[in-house]
Amino acid sequence: MDAPVRLTLKELEQVDISPPVEEERDAVIGRSVTRLEDPPLVRGEGCFAGDVNFPRQLHMRIVRSQVAHGRIRDIDIDAALRAPGVAAVWTGKDVADIPPIPFRATTVKGLDPYCQPILAQGVVRYVGDPVAAVFAEDPYLAEDAAALVAVDVEVLPPILDARDAPGEFLPGLTTEPTVIRKGYGDIDAAFEQAWRVVSLKLSIGRHSGVPLECRGAVARYDASRDMLEMHGAAKKSHWNRDEMSRMLGRPPSTMHLYEGHVGGGFGVRGEMYPEDVLVCLAALRLRRPVKWVEDRRENLMATNHSREQYHDIQAAIDEDGRLLGIRNIFYHSQGGYVRTHGPRVADMSAGLLLGPYRVPAYQVAAHYRMTNKTPAATFRSPGRYETTFVRERLMDAVAHEAGIDPLEARRRNLIGKEEMPYARPLDALGVDVVLDSGDYAGLLDKTLDRLQWDRLRGEIQARRAAGELVGVGFAMFVEKSGLGPSDMVRLTVDTSGNLELVTGAGSVGQGMETALAQICAHELGVDYRKVRVIKGRTDQIPFGNGAHASRVTVMSGSATQIAARKIRARALDIGSIVLGLPQDQLTIRDGRIMPRTGGDDAGSMTLAQVAQYLHPSQKTSRGHDPGLSAEGWFYSDHMNYPYGVHVAQVRIDEGTGGVKVERYLVAYDVGRAVNPKMIEGQIIGGLAQGLGGALYEHFTYDETGQPLATTFADYTMVTAHEMPQVDVMITEDAPSPLNPLGLKGAGEGGTNAAGAAIAAALDDALGMPGAITALPVMPMRLLQLLAQRGKAQRPNSPNDSKGA
Amino acid sequence: MDAPVRLTLKELEQVDISPPVEEERDAVIGRSVTRLEDPPLVRGEGCFAGDVNFPRQLHMRIVRSQVAHGRIRDIDIDAALRAPGVAAVWTGKDVADIPPIPFRATTVKGLDPYCQPILAQGVVRYVGDPVAAVFAEDPYLAEDAAALVAVDVEVLPPILDARDAPGEFLPGLTTEPTVIRKGYGDIDAAFEQAWRVVSLKLSIGRHSGVPLECRGAVARYDASRDMLEMHGAAKKSHWNRDEMSRMLGRPPSTMHLYEGHVGGGFGVRGEMYPEDVLVCLAALRLRRPVKWVEDRRENLMATNHSREQYHDIQAAIDEDGRLLGIRNIFYHSQGGYVRTHGPRVADMSAGLLLGPYRVPAYQVAAHYRMTNKTPAATFRSPGRYETTFVRERLMDAVAHEAGIDPLEARRRNLIGKEEMPYARPLDALGVDVVLDSGDYAGLLDKTLDRLQWDRLRGEIQARRAAGELVGVGFAMFVEKSGLGPSDMVRLTVDTSGNLELVTGAGSVGQGMETALAQICAHELGVDYRKVRVIKGRTDQIPFGNGAHASRVTVMSGSATQIAARKIRARALDIGSIVLGLPQDQLTIRDGRIMPRTGGDDAGSMTLAQVAQYLHPSQKTSRGHDPGLSAEGWFYSDHMNYPYGVHVAQVRIDEGTGGVKVERYLVAYDVGRAVNPKMIEGQIIGGLAQGLGGALYEHFTYDETGQPLATTFADYTMVTAHEMPQVDVMITEDAPSPLNPLGLKGAGEGGTNAAGAAIAAALDDALGMPGAITALPVMPMRLLQLLAQRGKAQRPNSPNDSKGA
Repeated sequence: MDAPVRLTLKELEQVDISPPVEEERDAVIGRSVTRLEDPPLVRGEGCFAGDVNFPRQLHMRIVRSQVAHGRIRDIDIDAALRAPGVAAVWTGKDVADIPPIPFRATTVKGLDPYCQPILAQGVVRYVGDPVAAVFAEDPYLAEDAAALVAVDVEVLPPILDARDAPGEFLPGLTTEPTVIRKGYGDIDAAFEQAWRVVSLKLSIGRHSGVPLECRGAVARYDASRDMLEMHGAAKKSHWNRDEMSRMLGRPPSTMHLYEGHVGGGFGVRGEMYPEDVLVCLAALRLRRPVKWVEDRRENLMATNHSREQYHDIQAAIDEDGRLLGIRNIFYHSQGGYVRTHGPRVADMSAGLLLGPYRVPAYQVAAHYRMTNKTPAATFRSPGRYETTFVRERLMDAVAHEAGIDPLEARRRNLIGKEEMPYARPLDALGVDVVLDSGDYAGLLDKTLDRLQWDRLRGEIQARRAAGELVGVGFAMFVEKSGLGPSDMVRLTVDTSGNLELVTGAGSVGQGMETALAQICAHELGVDYRKVRVIKGRTDQIPFGNGAHASRVTVMSGSATQIAARKIRARALDIGSIVLGLPQDQLTIRDGRIMPRTGGDDAGSMTLAQVAQYLHPSQKTSRGHDPGLSAEGWFYSDHMNYPYGVHVAQVRIDEGTGGVKVERYLVAYDVGRAVNPKMIEGQIIGGLAQGLGGALYEHFTYDETGQPLATTFADYTMVTAHEMPQVDVMITEDAPSPLNPLGLKGAGEGGTNAAGAAIAAALDDALGMPGAITALPVMPMRLLQLLAQRGKAQRPNSPNDSKGA
Repeated sequence: MDAPVRLTLKELEQVDISPPVEEERDAVIGRSVTRLEDPPLVRGEGCFAGDVNFPRQLHMRIVRSQVAHGRIRDIDIDAALRAPGVAAVWTGKDVADIPPIPFRATTVKGLDPYCQPILAQGVVRYVGDPVAAVFAEDPYLAEDAAALVAVDVEVLPPILDARDAPGEFLPGLTTEPTVIRKGYGDIDAAFEQAWRVVSLKLSIGRHSGVPLECRGAVARYDASRDMLEMHGAAKKSHWNRDEMSRMLGRPPSTMHLYEGHVGGGFGVRGEMYPEDVLVCLAALRLRRPVKWVEDRRENLMATNHSREQYHDIQAAIDEDGRLLGIRNIFYHSQGGYVRTHGPRVADMSAGLLLGPYRVPAYQVAAHYRMTNKTPAATFRSPGRYETTFVRERLMDAVAHEAGIDPLEARRRNLIGKEEMPYARPLDALGVDVVLDSGDYAGLLDKTLDRLQWDRLRGEIQARRAAGELVGVGFAMFVEKSGLGPSDMVRLTVDTSGNLELVTGAGSVGQGMETALAQICAHELGVDYRKVRVIKGRTDQIPFGNGAHASRVTVMSGSATQIAARKIRARALDIGSIVLGLPQDQLTIRDGRIMPRTGGDDAGSMTLAQVAQYLHPSQKTSRGHDPGLSAEGWFYSDHMNYPYGVHVAQVRIDEGTGGVKVERYLVAYDVGRAVNPKMIEGQIIGGLAQGLGGALYEHFTYDETGQPLATTFADYTMVTAHEMPQVDVMITEDAPSPLNPLGLKGAGEGGTNAAGAAIAAALDDALGMPGAITALPVMPMRLLQLLAQRGKAQRPNSPNDSKGA
């Protein structure tokens, strides 16, 4: 309705004709108000993918490969077709005309042949690879019939170790489709001049986001409008809509995706998977709604995995423990296909490894390797969880080598706040890495204060002297957030004075609606509960970026601010006409335009009345843009960079090798906290996933490529029992200069450094610097390490095994 | 996306930076291209209200009053509540908190107490008045349970004749809530100076639009989003949404209406009725989807009736048969409640009676009378069908009185084309009546040419001489269309080059989608089949006016033209950048921007490529409004006035009194015909309804107020059997100066003058000028008239009764 605005920060002031002065604002930004999202959820009125039903719907069941690598000789579907209630059975031949799942923009060329078809075309590449689809009247009949599909496969030797020398993956395809190389500075000189070189071999295990809600999708084709709908979307509704419609040969305007409630996203849910395309195609071809919900076993072997990397890293240091250069070669185990991300995780690992430290020279080679495992992609803090573990292990080793305290080693290498913005001659996700703001040393100081570090250290030493295997570990990190290039919202005040904020952002549990409503309310002078956020519906807004990359509050939040200021300006314009006062004498409080100063009798006008005034059925609307509505567009060419410190205190049970995380502190600077309680929730939840990857969760495979963790008995998620008491310290010391509110993303800081901090704490508890070189650290490994420690170091206390 | 534009015709030129020159245009306006609406309908893929279903839906059945007027003593719902499958039974008490159905803007005050509650509150006012609602698991159980609801009513004497002296309707309510008076000139002087005064008493029977699809609605409350939906909307989705949400105490942004396929609108379908509100309220309260579809009996006694009026009209004329003044008093039988229209039909009857004639003085009093019949409202050509009958009967009587040919009497009184625009000191629907353009005499000439009138008259005379009761009648009329004040569309080119045109207009079978697509294609240089029209969905566009008042092509069509020109300008702007040519050297042909002149190697760019260029994910979009999208707003303060001539040739069966309409011509000037075939279809369909009201369709009542026409056995619709061969002559002699394309509405011209022309033809066939004074003319009446003619005029032919 309103012309879109791309404003510089300076220009933004011009929109805000009459900005609320701080004391007039309903200072709702920064307050831990109650979440708007919660009422339907606590009442049991949530609508997840499984809750979506249409009359006459069919249910889809996927027949999956039972071997990791093989050539399909034959698929016999006759018995399945004759099974009760079966409407159709499809194999690869039936969908050979549908292109494979594409990936989003990537700078790496040549990956197309590695994309996944929606049903296997002649070969299978991992256990779980979709081979056939059965459509039946109910999910039980579909599952029964799927069991009757006989897949005859010639088994090929599986490729399981990403460190193996590159070779043939399949005819015409190599196991190493790309090597991503980055770097700057004179790395050879750095290593030649080094006082010492510290070298480590480190690995991060395969784990992933495992949402409470398994994936699900319901597609419906409305022939009366030639409109295809898919319900159960998440994360990337607009992109998925655009690409699926292209795959199906339909104009994008003839297809819409709908995101309902989402029981956890974490980067894995809402990507475009074969099953999403299959339900849509089936709805079109079978002319009935088609529903699919995966079971947990499928979820654990078909939904994106993540993380698995093997790093050979070296640091060149001077005698003070200062970094002169870092060399890194790593192997990224991608799995059987390249999915929507392309090589993003490897790219980010390479581009963001250096974290908060000043590194004069850097060289990295990311070997992107195909393996016969479930395809991998992004999971909360992708590439950062891995490289923070690698980098912080390295920093601990540097400290040890230089004979200084690990904290001191970090302090000597941290980028100073006076160096900000700090441009690294690197890129990640296609944009230059420019650390926008930060006071890393300052946050470390605050962390130590909060911990009462000297006292704590004393306590730990005392307990250790008493024989307890207790230790504390630190890790520092830089996150990234607010990926551009643009975002928009549309804000409308209806004639009842209620606000509708339509966004293309997604809501996967993070509290997005509440955060945007707070920003809107803050700028506009209304109760945030009057703001209704419409999200995840491609028919409601032309563009959107869903929910990923910790970008929503930064990008959509900034767009919301712009839209709210435009509405404010428009409302004050009408208020000025009606109330007969200059705009700069007016403000908006609690949805009412009123004089900034003056008595009750000065007159006022509600936003509802402004919307009525501007309704196109009213003569008063003439000469104005009809309706009280505005779009806000926000553009950004750079990411911004929140940062933090994790501190873990652990105790190892000598008898079992079990680990008790006794205490955990996350210090995190988000620039500006819209809703501190929600950020705290994000951090604690993120930490649970970080601890999972550090200590508990591992997608293991046997030598034939059979996954060994396909139930929650084997894939051991962190529960409330394992979670420590978490102290979250949110700081706002380094607002981002890249958006007017100074916002940075808060979604991934709880996860990022958990592996690193746990590893350091375990080293400390063991008294074996550098002992931990691989995640997750399972009890068996700790028992091995304890055995290495030898009898000389055996603790005195005989009752130590009671813990953990 | 784009700033809305309110352009004068002059300013419009500025938007059209590079207008297509006529020979470059895909001259799709004016071509009878195939309708976009038809493919799903001919494939059986239409989605009407009855086709909408949701899991767990309840079915509503209305218990209706069986007496015309009474006081409710008691309603016993116990047996119904105990019936199988019943979820709830409501009576007036259960919904006493819901306000009655409001009416749209009216200039008449004081009608609020006459509005209809959603269930009767203590009294019943017509047979069919909703008294209770039963909700059950299927429609059969609901109907069975409804039969168990015992309504104890104290019967009151019914008021059935609108001509009775005013009195008490109910305590505190009069039978005459308003008298609408209009007029101008010195009416007394006109009658004093008159050579003669012609006086007639005329009546129009009660009939209405009877769509093939009965009314239906399905409401669903999505608690997960706090969103209420109603499917089965038509005609006025946005207004109904706004008002229903107000009645239900919800912000309008928390409710949406969806119009699917509509099996006929005709003015009656899609108004807000009690049942619409009831399904919405029930969905909210019962937390289950609620479906309701009326049966035909309900449709005939609960859906809006129309027409019933009684006119006492007088013309003062001079000795040449020229009109000096017209006086009219009429009585409008409203029925038991004032519905959404308020007194619009009476108002239009008063304001538009004079038609194409020059009338120096005029005085009218419209007595708006409550009766214990089904409430009345608009039906195709409301107020015009009635008053064209009255006016043209009057003109025939004037001719007879002055001893001149009826056509000559008309010619002497027609407003000349040189007098246009012709401002009448009258208003209708709240706007001044200014006849914008027209050549009434010219159209009469063309009509006579088309008829080969002299030859035809000779034939008729010969047949009559041979004893056949055959006759020809003429009627002239002015329609009205294009009611403002505003309309908008949003036009978007997607990245595949397909266009989406979102409109708040409704589609009830008239071909709106095709007409708008043609206008869009014409302006933009694309295939009209690439334009996808999204309509009747309140969640897709903030404002809309549905489908009524023959306004869509005029208002939404003009808005479409503006939007298309803006898209054209934006596309040429990008084309100019990319192709490196000035905009004025470029044009768009078949969706491709190319040089106006020059060879094939000059380069070109598709609209899809422009949309991709402007996609906000692309760097190229910077500095432009993202996306290839534009809004078009069109404003109009006046209606415009198409006009026409109806000519009927009839033959009366002397034995049965049956009438055979042998031939029919409709000449109609629409200013500019977007799709002549669609207009022809509208005219023929409209004529069928006009003939129904002239000869066949009649909602009769017995003396207790019991309706006697509640099945198609008694309410005798026109079928293909009764329809004559229709000759439609569409002319474009008087484009409207009120919109750039010169459009006028085409929906009601087929209906308008049918009663008038049939009456004149029957007079002629009978040889009894002025014999027909009431519609419909049923066989019994003709037999009475034939008896009056007496034996002297008995025709010679004995086999005459074989006809009809």
